[in-house]
Amino acid sequence: MKEARNSRISRRKFLSLSGITAGTVLAFLSSCRKKESLPSPKSSKIYRWKMVTTWPKNFPVLGTGAEKLARNIEAMSGGRLQIKVYAAGELLPPFECFDAVSRGAAEMSHGASYYWKGKVPEAQFFSSVPFGLKSGEMGAWLHHGGGLDLWDKLYADFSVKPFACGNTGVQMGGWFNREIRQLSDFKGLKIRMPGLAGEVLRQCGATVVSLPGGEIFQALQSGAIDATDWIGPSNDLAFGFYKAAKYYYWPGWHEPGTALELNVNRDKYEKLPKDLQIIIQHACKAAYEDMVSEFTARNSTALVTLIQKNKIQLKKFPDEALRTLGKLSRKVVEKLSQKSPISSEIYKSYTDFRKSILEWDRIGEKGFSLARMILDKQR
Amino acid sequence: MKEARNSRISRRKFLSLSGITAGTVLAFLSSCRKKESLPSPKSSKIYRWKMVTTWPKNFPVLGTGAEKLARNIEAMSGGRLQIKVYAAGELLPPFECFDAVSRGAAEMSHGASYYWKGKVPEAQFFSSVPFGLKSGEMGAWLHHGGGLDLWDKLYADFSVKPFACGNTGVQMGGWFNREIRQLSDFKGLKIRMPGLAGEVLRQCGATVVSLPGGEIFQALQSGAIDATDWIGPSNDLAFGFYKAAKYYYWPGWHEPGTALELNVNRDKYEKLPKDLQIIIQHACKAAYEDMVSEFTARNSTALVTLIQKNKIQLKKFPDEALRTLGKLSRKVVEKLSQKSPISSEIYKSYTDFRKSILEWDRIGEKGFSLARMILDKQR
Repeated sequence: MKEARNSRISRRKFLSLSGITAGTVLAFLSSCRKKESLPSPKSSKIYRWKMVTTWPKNFPVLGTGAEKLARNIEAMSGGRLQIKVYAAGELLPPFECFDAVSRGAAEMSHGASYYWKGKVPEAQFFSSVPFGLKSGEMGAWLHHGGGLDLWDKLYADFSVKPFACGNTGVQMGGWFNREIRQLSDFKGLKIRMPGLAGEVLRQCGATVVSLPGGEIFQALQSGAIDATDWIGPSNDLAFGFYKAAKYYYWPGWHEPGTALELNVNRDKYEKLPKDLQIIIQHACKAAYEDMVSEFTARNSTALVTLIQKNKIQLKKFPDEALRTLGKLSRKVVEKLSQKSPISSEIYKSYTDFRKSILEWDRIGEKGFSLARMILDKQR
Repeated sequence: MKEARNSRISRRKFLSLSGITAGTVLAFLSSCRKKESLPSPKSSKIYRWKMVTTWPKNFPVLGTGAEKLARNIEAMSGGRLQIKVYAAGELLPPFECFDAVSRGAAEMSHGASYYWKGKVPEAQFFSSVPFGLKSGEMGAWLHHGGGLDLWDKLYADFSVKPFACGNTGVQMGGWFNREIRQLSDFKGLKIRMPGLAGEVLRQCGATVVSLPGGEIFQALQSGAIDATDWIGPSNDLAFGFYKAAKYYYWPGWHEPGTALELNVNRDKYEKLPKDLQIIIQHACKAAYEDMVSEFTARNSTALVTLIQKNKIQLKKFPDEALRTLGKLSRKVVEKLSQKSPISSEIYKSYTDFRKSILEWDRIGEKGFSLARMILDKQR
C-alpha cells in the first residue's frame, strides 16, 4: 500500500517537473504494463541520509563495518538511498547518537544498545548479558525467538527502529596485571569494565572505572588501573595491550556475544518505499553474518600471533570464581528485569530462550568442539 | 558501466514504446537531475527466473528457506527480479539441479554442494567436512578466509556462480538401534550415511547404504538398517525417528556445520544490473544468518521435546571411537585433496583456516560454554 502511495506521489512530481501531459504518461505506463506486466513503477526519489556512529574513524571491524553497511545499502538501492557515515565526534559525541536518531537529527546510528543504558536501561538485554547468549544464539533469539520484536517495541517510544547489524562474537576476559587465583583477588582490583559486568565486579570488591578506549593503554601501563576488558584478540592486538599487561584472561563471561545495532528514525523509515525498507532489513542481517565472520577470522589469526610472536600468558579464570561471578550476574540481571513491565517481559523472553538452548549447546556445538580437540591434541 | 548501458537500453525502449519525443524525455531527466542529482535512472526491466531446489515441497527450514530467499530477493528488487521456486522433482530430479543451472535451463538452484560430488568431488569442501568447521567458522572461512573465492573458481568452469545461503548448524550423530560402546561396534552396522563420513564408516567395517529421506523411517523401523544420520533435533522430530530408533547419538562429527548454496547461472548473473547482483549477494548472506538462527532456535526446543516428552535416550560416541573416526576422516579428506590441483588448493586453504581457529575456539566459544554450564548445573 505504501509503495502505491509513493508511486502516486512520484508520478505527480514527474508531471509538475516535466510538463508532460498526464495522458502521455499514462499511455507510456500502460504500454510498459502490456509488454512486461510491470508492478507499480519504482520511485526514483533520492534519499540522502546521515549515519552517526559510536566508533572512531576507521575503527577495525566495528567502524569499518558501519561504513560497509552504508555502502551495501546504497549499492542495493541502486543509489536511491545514499548514506554519509560520521565517526564518533564528527557530527556529535558518540553517546548522543540514540537521541539524534530519536529526534530525527540523523536518520541512522550504528553502535551497541548498552551505550544508552542511562536513558533506556532495558536496552542492555540487546547487546550482551553476562553468562548469557553466544553470538549465534543471540541471532537466533533476535531473529527467531521474538527478541527483535521486543527490541522494536522498546524503542518505539523513542521513535527509533532497531536492527541487529553485527556481533563481536565471544569476547576475551581481559588484560590483567594481577593474577586471579580465587574470587577474592578481585577485591581492590582497579579495573575498566562497563555495563552489567562492571556492577558484578563492584559487588566482588573491585574498583570499577570508566575509561574511553583511547586512554586505556596508558592507564594500564602506568598502573592507574590493574586490568581492563576490551574486545577480542584482533582489536586487542591492534591496541598493543600485550605490551602493558602480563596476563590475558578467558573466558569472556561478561560479553559472550555482543550484538551491534543499526537504529533508524521511525518516521523516516516508514516513509521509505517498501523495497528500501526491506533492503535495510536484509543488509543488516547480512552485516550480522559478515561482522561475526570477520571477527572470527581475525581473532583466530591474532590469537596465534599473540601467543607465538608476542608470547602472551593466557590464563583461565578459576571455576570457583566463575561460579560466583555467574551467581552475581544472575542477580544483577534479575534486578534490571524489575525496572519496568517491558524489562520483565524482555527478561522472561531472554531467559526462557537461554534455558531452552543450554542442552542443545552442550551436545551440539560444545560437544563437537570437545571431540575435535581430542583429535587435534593427539597430532 | 553495466548499469549505464542498461539505462541506455531502457531509455531507448521508453522512446519506442511511448512515442514521447526524445527532447521531452531529456528535459524531464535534466530537470530531475537538477532537483536531486539522480544517478543513472534504473532499468525497469523485469526478470522472470526459475529456482530449482533439492528439497521436497515445504521441507522445513531448507525448502522454506529457499522460498523465503526468493521472496526476499524479489522484494528488495522492487519486483524487478521475480523468482519461481520448484521443489525437488517438480521441474527436474533434485540431483540434476547443478547441471540445469550450468546449461541455463534454470537460472538458480538451492541445495548443498556435496550433492554434486559425482561430477565435482571438490565441491564437498563447501558443504561440510567431518571434524571440520562449525557453522560460524564456515561462514568466517567462506566470507573472510578466501573460501567463497575458491568456490567461485571451482564452479566457474561450469558457468555456475555459487553463494553460501544458509547453514544447518552442527548436526546430530544420528539415530541408532545398536549401541556404540567402542569402535568395533560399527562393524557390520547397516547405516545410512552419505558423503565423506560414509566412506569413513565403510573403513570401520559398516555397511553404508544410500537412501532418500522418504524411505529412511521405514527402513529403520523394519530393521533393514540399524542406524541413520539425518539433520538435527527439529527435522528429526518432524520425521518421527524417535519412534523407530532407541538411541540418539552426539556429537555430529560427520557434519559440524553444513553450508547450503545458491547457484546462479554465470552468464545470466553477469547480465543483471549491478544493483540486482548485489541484492542477490546480500540476500544470500542474510539467509545464511537467518537459516542458522532458525535451526538453532528450532533445534533447542525440539531437543527439549524429544527428551522430556518423547523420552529419547541421548548417547555420546565414546572418545576412543571419535579419535579413530577423526584419524580416518583426515585420511579420507587428504585423499580428496589429491583429486586435482584445485582440490589441493581448496584443501590447503580449508585446513590452514581450521588449524588457526582451534585455539580461539578452545578459549572462546567452547571456553565460555563450559563456564556457563558450571553455573547452570548448580541451579
